[in-house]
Amino acid sequence: MIRRLAILGVGLIGGSLALALKRTALVETVVGYGRGRDNLELALRQGVIDALADTPETAVAGAELAVLAVPVGSMPWLMQRIAPVLAPDAVLTDVGSTKQDVVAAAEAHLGPRLARFVPGHPIAGAEASGVAAAHADLFRGKEVILTPLPHTDPLALERVQAMWQGCGAQVLRMPPALHDRIFAAVSHLPHLAAFALMDELAGRDEAELYFRHAGSGFRDFTRIAGSHPEMWRDIALANRAALVAELDAYIARLRVMRELVAAGDGEALMQLLTRASRARRLWTQHWVQDRPK
Amino acid sequence: MIRRLAILGVGLIGGSLALALKRTALVETVVGYGRGRDNLELALRQGVIDALADTPETAVAGAELAVLAVPVGSMPWLMQRIAPVLAPDAVLTDVGSTKQDVVAAAEAHLGPRLARFVPGHPIAGAEASGVAAAHADLFRGKEVILTPLPHTDPLALERVQAMWQGCGAQVLRMPPALHDRIFAAVSHLPHLAAFALMDELAGRDEAELYFRHAGSGFRDFTRIAGSHPEMWRDIALANRAALVAELDAYIARLRVMRELVAAGDGEALMQLLTRASRARRLWTQHWVQDRPK
Repeated sequence: MIRRLAILGVGLIGGSLALALKRTALVETVVGYGRGRDNLELALRQGVIDALADTPETAVAGAELAVLAVPVGSMPWLMQRIAPVLAPDAVLTDVGSTKQDVVAAAEAHLGPRLARFVPGHPIAGAEASGVAAAHADLFRGKEVILTPLPHTDPLALERVQAMWQGCGAQVLRMPPALHDRIFAAVSHLPHLAAFALMDELAGRDEAELYFRHAGSGFRDFTRIAGSHPEMWRDIALANRAALVAELDAYIARLRVMRELVAAGDGEALMQLLTRASRARRLWTQHWVQDRPK
Repeated sequence: MIRRLAILGVGLIGGSLALALKRTALVETVVGYGRGRDNLELALRQGVIDALADTPETAVAGAELAVLAVPVGSMPWLMQRIAPVLAPDAVLTDVGSTKQDVVAAAEAHLGPRLARFVPGHPIAGAEASGVAAAHADLFRGKEVILTPLPHTDPLALERVQAMWQGCGAQVLRMPPALHDRIFAAVSHLPHLAAFALMDELAGRDEAELYFRHAGSGFRDFTRIAGSHPEMWRDIALANRAALVAELDAYIARLRVMRELVAAGDGEALMQLLTRASRARRLWTQHWVQDRPK
């Protein structure tokens, strides 16, 4: 049981976490802090948080557990602000989609509180953002990856793990660098690729004509292009090296495809499409069916 | 009322069309022809078709309306086979995802039957293929685009339009070249881009590790990579010029993004992501809400 939980950034992820923990009675009081006053007041009215803090410092004062649920670019500033006021036994965690940069910020700013910081990343999201999109089931059946450091306090790690398990999530651990490499490929790249297609078409004179006829394939391919721009700018910059490598690999693969189409090489194209289609079906069978959506 | 309907290619689209027309009692007897004997026999057992033809010729003999629902690369061959046996007043249509190549095939092979050929394209699909995936509601609320030629018989056009309206679809008309340009951008390109990502990751030594952690964003982005390889090879080759232009534009846009990320240009990246995200939200509001899924 967490007597006082501080959520810094009460958006889709922070709000859903608060709702999930409240439902299972794993938390007594949730204090929220965030930049958007309207969003925070909505969170209070909807019972997502019990109290509203005007500063990060007042949010974490007296909190047993504090969760940083802001875009990763805002983590260093927040850590700097709260480090001096965190209780010595308070546990701190984050939900950032990149881990090496968040770990570096923690090392730079948390000082003696570093050992009780547990870097984390719930693999859950939606194209909607803000507390209005939050729901208690967001993490049910999803993965949460923790990337503890060699000196991370095992009790702090246990506590954060228990928090996510209480939300119905499955908790895994891996090193920050491996995390960032994997998610550059399976998450950060597809997001940028979806944003790129949307931007390409939206910038055309005939954009309306194109959009008018786009169907369900386009809808699903571009769903994640509706995601929070600031959050994704921060992720792209934070995971820059891995993401640039993924963009290069993807562009190279698209160029191969382009050459096959231009040359009318039906046989090689058929091989490529067959490999991809088979891989997609295998993935669906192995991974998607195990996870509630 | 269509007394005898011939479906050549009883897959997702052909099978769903048969089911939709049977439900509304717009058709008396459906004769099916296709390459896969197992699939055809399943269609017969499930009542999707009433009779099974061993050749395209026997399928269309005596049919008032014949629908070509095969990958576009197989259209020329099929047209050549059936042209001599089509009744003079029979109406012929197709469901191909590209229209200029199908029109060219019709002009080359249909001879005196050309005036009663109505080129069409229902904007509906799924990553599943085969008659097992067919359902009577596939076209409800969806668009069907007809691309009649100057000399297309107005009565044939009316008949095909009525058929699709009977399935709950909304019928539009446009020239074949415009059709192919629009769908290169909003359908053919996203399909190849999804196939490309799947193929890129599946080819890696650590593919399983990547796929293991892919979440719902990846799932939706790659859904269409599960589509029928032969169908998409044919589409890519049939709409080659427009698709190569779209691939070039997309690759160029990805390169811009790659440069912004590599340079750490957060401001320009934020502008791009904001434009894309806003365009996606507008599209959702304007178009998706009007359409039953």
